[in-house]
Amino acid sequence: MHAVAIVGAGRIGAIHARNAAANARLRLAYVVDPIADAATRLARACGAQSAGLEDALSDPEVKGVIVASSTDTHLEVALKAIEAGKSVFCEKPIDLSLEKVQRNAPVFSSGNFFLGFNRRFDPNFAELWRKLRGGEIGRLETLHIISHDPAPPPLSYIGASGGLFRDMTIHDFDMARWLAGEEVAEVYAAGGCLVDEKIADHGDIDTAKIILKTASGRLVFISNTRRSGYGYDQRIEAYGAKGRLAAGNMRETTVEHWSTEGCVSDAPMDFFLERYAAAYVNEMEHFADMLSGDASPTVTYDDGLQAQKISESALRSARNNRPVKV
Amino acid sequence: MHAVAIVGAGRIGAIHARNAAANARLRLAYVVDPIADAATRLARACGAQSAGLEDALSDPEVKGVIVASSTDTHLEVALKAIEAGKSVFCEKPIDLSLEKVQRNAPVFSSGNFFLGFNRRFDPNFAELWRKLRGGEIGRLETLHIISHDPAPPPLSYIGASGGLFRDMTIHDFDMARWLAGEEVAEVYAAGGCLVDEKIADHGDIDTAKIILKTASGRLVFISNTRRSGYGYDQRIEAYGAKGRLAAGNMRETTVEHWSTEGCVSDAPMDFFLERYAAAYVNEMEHFADMLSGDASPTVTYDDGLQAQKISESALRSARNNRPVKV
Amino acid sequence: MHAVAIVGAGRIGAIHARNAAANARLRLAYVVDPIADAATRLARACGAQSAGLEDALSDPEVKGVIVASSTDTHLEVALKAIEAGKSVFCEKPIDLSLEKVQRNAPVFSSGNFFLGFNRRFDPNFAELWRKLRGGEIGRLETLHIISHDPAPPPLSYIGASGGLFRDMTIHDFDMARWLAGEEVAEVYAAGGCLVDEKIADHGDIDTAKIILKTASGRLVFISNTRRSGYGYDQRIEAYGAKGRLAAGNMRETTVEHWSTEGCVSDAPMDFFLERYAAAYVNEMEHFADMLSGDASPTVTYDDGLQAQKISESALRSARNNRPVKV
Amino acid sequence: MHAVAIVGAGRIGAIHARNAAANARLRLAYVVDPIADAATRLARACGAQSAGLEDALSDPEVKGVIVASSTDTHLEVALKAIEAGKSVFCEKPIDLSLEKVQRNAPVFSSGNFFLGFNRRFDPNFAELWRKLRGGEIGRLETLHIISHDPAPPPLSYIGASGGLFRDMTIHDFDMARWLAGEEVAEVYAAGGCLVDEKIADHGDIDTAKIILKTASGRLVFISNTRRSGYGYDQRIEAYGAKGRLAAGNMRETTVEHWSTEGCVSDAPMDFFLERYAAAYVNEMEHFADMLSGDASPTVTYDDGLQAQKISESALRSARNNRPVKV
Repeated sequence: MHAVAIVGAGRIGAIHARNAAANARLRLAYVVDPIADAATRLARACGAQSAGLEDALSDPEVKGVIVASSTDTHLEVALKAIEAGKSVFCEKPIDLSLEKVQRNAPVFSSGNFFLGFNRRFDPNFAELWRKLRGGEIGRLETLHIISHDPAPPPLSYIGASGGLFRDMTIHDFDMARWLAGEEVAEVYAAGGCLVDEKIADHGDIDTAKIILKTASGRLVFISNTRRSGYGYDQRIEAYGAKGRLAAGNMRETTVEHWSTEGCVSDAPMDFFLERYAAAYVNEMEHFADMLSGDASPTVTYDDGLQAQKISESALRSARNNRPVKV
Repeated sequence: MHAVAIVGAGRIGAIHARNAAANARLRLAYVVDPIADAATRLARACGAQSAGLEDALSDPEVKGVIVASSTDTHLEVALKAIEAGKSVFCEKPIDLSLEKVQRNAPVFSSGNFFLGFNRRFDPNFAELWRKLRGGEIGRLETLHIISHDPAPPPLSYIGASGGLFRDMTIHDFDMARWLAGEEVAEVYAAGGCLVDEKIADHGDIDTAKIILKTASGRLVFISNTRRSGYGYDQRIEAYGAKGRLAAGNMRETTVEHWSTEGCVSDAPMDFFLERYAAAYVNEMEHFADMLSGDASPTVTYDDGLQAQKISESALRSARNNRPVKV
Repeated sequence: MHAVAIVGAGRIGAIHARNAAANARLRLAYVVDPIADAATRLARACGAQSAGLEDALSDPEVKGVIVASSTDTHLEVALKAIEAGKSVFCEKPIDLSLEKVQRNAPVFSSGNFFLGFNRRFDPNFAELWRKLRGGEIGRLETLHIISHDPAPPPLSYIGASGGLFRDMTIHDFDMARWLAGEEVAEVYAAGGCLVDEKIADHGDIDTAKIILKTASGRLVFISNTRRSGYGYDQRIEAYGAKGRLAAGNMRETTVEHWSTEGCVSDAPMDFFLERYAAAYVNEMEHFADMLSGDASPTVTYDDGLQAQKISESALRSARNNRPVKV
Repeated sequence: MHAVAIVGAGRIGAIHARNAAANARLRLAYVVDPIADAATRLARACGAQSAGLEDALSDPEVKGVIVASSTDTHLEVALKAIEAGKSVFCEKPIDLSLEKVQRNAPVFSSGNFFLGFNRRFDPNFAELWRKLRGGEIGRLETLHIISHDPAPPPLSYIGASGGLFRDMTIHDFDMARWLAGEEVAEVYAAGGCLVDEKIADHGDIDTAKIILKTASGRLVFISNTRRSGYGYDQRIEAYGAKGRLAAGNMRETTVEHWSTEGCVSDAPMDFFLERYAAAYVNEMEHFADMLSGDASPTVTYDDGLQAQKISESALRSARNNRPVKV
């Protein structure tokens, strides 16, 4: 059993803490959070103890650190953990400043940093990826990525989020790179405020349709909205020389109600904590593999960096209404 | 082009008349109906002329007769047409009296009588049959046949129909024989009046669950109701050594409406005239094949007789609450 | 019954001729085709007679003319028919030259010209349109239109087609205008030759992803490929303030085969003659409505003109890799 | 936190032990198993200790006992636990001997015995039950229960299982009682050996189609096979005065592969440990509710007894080929 510490006892921290505690190869030793109460409560529920960051990092038994603190502290905590010789499992994004991310890249080149792009670990998308790599539709030509949130976050969140492309589309840019198996060369992003004018007042958009061109000329379409009106819509379609692979939404239940009005079936699972519950378990399993020396991280610091570069290009594209090279 | 006459200008007669007129190998010459107006109107719409039965039968150009008159005249018209040397396409049932059907069987043994069990010509069920015969699920073991009407017919219809087993389940008994590829040996029928007590007052039931055993020991389940409350439900499932074949309902459209209430999709097509529209076209094509000498009838007088025998056994089973040998 | 003539006895001409002959309010009087044999054969099968164009147009009983000849003759035939005082049902496109289409527009402003954009008459898309207009998802925000052909046409066809945008996407541009209920203001088209390099040698592309902005700021995504590898894929999704409407593919049958390999269900109907069979019938019904004075054409000459303008803009956008105002 | 002990460290014992350990309100104190190694290994993985039954029962902190030992010891262990004043969560069946179950019934009438009919806790079936009780389809008329195993168990298991009706159909009889909300009055069971003749040599059948009549006249159909050839098929359909409710299979993933062969989608989850994973978690939650005094057991000793009575009647029905009163 490898001892690990978690930094951050909020919503996503609680998910990771429980998954670490339930993982047969991990032992959750410490929960670190500036809000002492939150740390203590989560620690007790998971059989761990609350501690300060320095105490947790100085315990030589601790092999891994899970960074689930607020976004603006990700990079700082990760740097300290790496310096202390720990392996790091870091929530995305690394940092909202692309410049800071680029500057610190050399520190994270040693193969002990794992970035939590959760969708790569979703059983549906992972199966689509395996079939794609297995050649089931021949050479991949184009991709469609639908990624719609059920309802907009509070306006205060919007302001601090870095905007739609850095906060939301970044997941889709990572999906595009991962599924295409190559870098994105150019992006055209058309966006607007179709959902809520107040989002425009905060300098952001709430709806986007994006076309990427990859290095080899593949085309990728991404659709985003902050408010779908019908739940959390997470679908991917891959088109190749010999057919199509599609991964659909998961639903609450399989129950159908047939009446004279037609057939009513369940909405998609809502929201990411539920839809990606299995993905979070799989991420922790991958972190345990890393700590056991059985795997190198499949999502690296550079993956985070590349996705952020596309985000910045998308932002420029939308502002200037023209395709932008990444 | 083979000239044909149709007897009966009612609802199903109109369907067959239009399909005959549109068939590239058939020419609809006559429409026969005791209600002169109905005959004239249908004849005009189809480029035919209205006529009396004797006139139509005495025209030597007429090669085939389509019997779509009222049930109690099917046998009489068919007999006259056979005597006049015509090929016959007869709507089911041959006659409500099993005794009469049996007595007249020898007349219809010459291969020029085709009984309109429409479901055998439904593209979905026909494809299921082909896959079954093609060995896609290995040896067939059991069958489930769901056959639910959207809403009960008028009580006056119930009284004259011969009852649920003779009027409605007879289609399912034919499906069972056709798909199993062998005779039914025994039937157990559990029925009741769960929909409308007035149907019981007319000596009938409105709901039935039936288990058949075939000669070789296969098991067949049939479900019937006069009122589904959700449209015309016509499904078949076949279970074999290597898997399952299922033919589902056809829907009005493919449109889905996703909202916070979930996903609403269309009800099944309602009713048989719409669901089996393609089947009626295919029946007429088969009749044209017969007249062209390219096919023997795939549904014979004996098929009608056997299905009626099972109906009578089902009635005895339900009345006495025990399995009955056919 | 209104007498009509059809010009063109090819594949689509045969469809329209049979639908006209089967329509209760229309009488197909003439079939016109430079290949006399083809005209005679089709005329005989439909109870019409073959004739020269001038003879057909000079028959005062003929109220309507269906233009299904080769693309380069559409405009010329339509002009003659209008001059002769007939109503016209014209296959798309009006002409490959936008300039010619614009120049002749004044001739066709009198309300007796109906352009056959068949997809508007597909029962699935029509139902989606009705629900959209009925407010079922609130204000429309964005549209996705998937329009993939099963396999590329012969290279000779590619050369004469005017290219992907004028030949294929034009249908999708019409869908966008019709569903959005407003004009398209700007188009960005990213295209490439991912299917077959020989198509590039003919100066065309085989794959495109397109983003439209409408006058009011709605966003529309269109996906095209000349070869899907899995059949004819025709789907539309509409996203609004209160949810999503989706119209899916129609399949050959509803049969499913379940085995240890999973569930195999039928491919989409292949190709447009089958998928849009009901649409062609509905088009003819609409033409009969026009001839009866019960309807004005729902698809006008101007609709054809606008769709072609977007096609030209899309071509410029793809060539110059930038968004282009329509 | 309530301390609990588990008896049985086999396959299902391991599931319950892990769910108890992960439950926020339960503490797994002891694992009891005659195979000391198995007990020790499972105890270590769950943070518990291995112990003998007497030691576990004599610990006054232990409030609940989970009985997951071999079937022939269920009743004996449950009796000892009840005598020791513990609440019991017992795997089904209580005992293969109906006589023993009936004789010991009085001991278990005090409301601290919970029988693990897992399917009642499946989110899909539970939602169907809620909608049914909520009146969504009006008065329930009939039920269809499809319960097909993927592949037959070893013949040694067949011999010790008590036969298909006692081992497998008993789950479906419980579903019938639970969903109908009333007792079963009569059963007709048609069974056979269609899968493997060797099962007949062991005095058992492998395929059954069963019709139940409830006290008020509702009809229930049950379909069983020991080998589906396409995975674990667990579906329920409820038919009522105003429509139909259907709960379908859960699949491994949502991925579809479209090609010229059609669409291939995933098989159902295989087998009960995976399909009913959420149900086992929900069972443990219900046991925690019982120990907290927040709930009486929703599945009682009497529920087990009644389902077994129907099993015995079904066996007599199949042997004598006639309906049998329960």
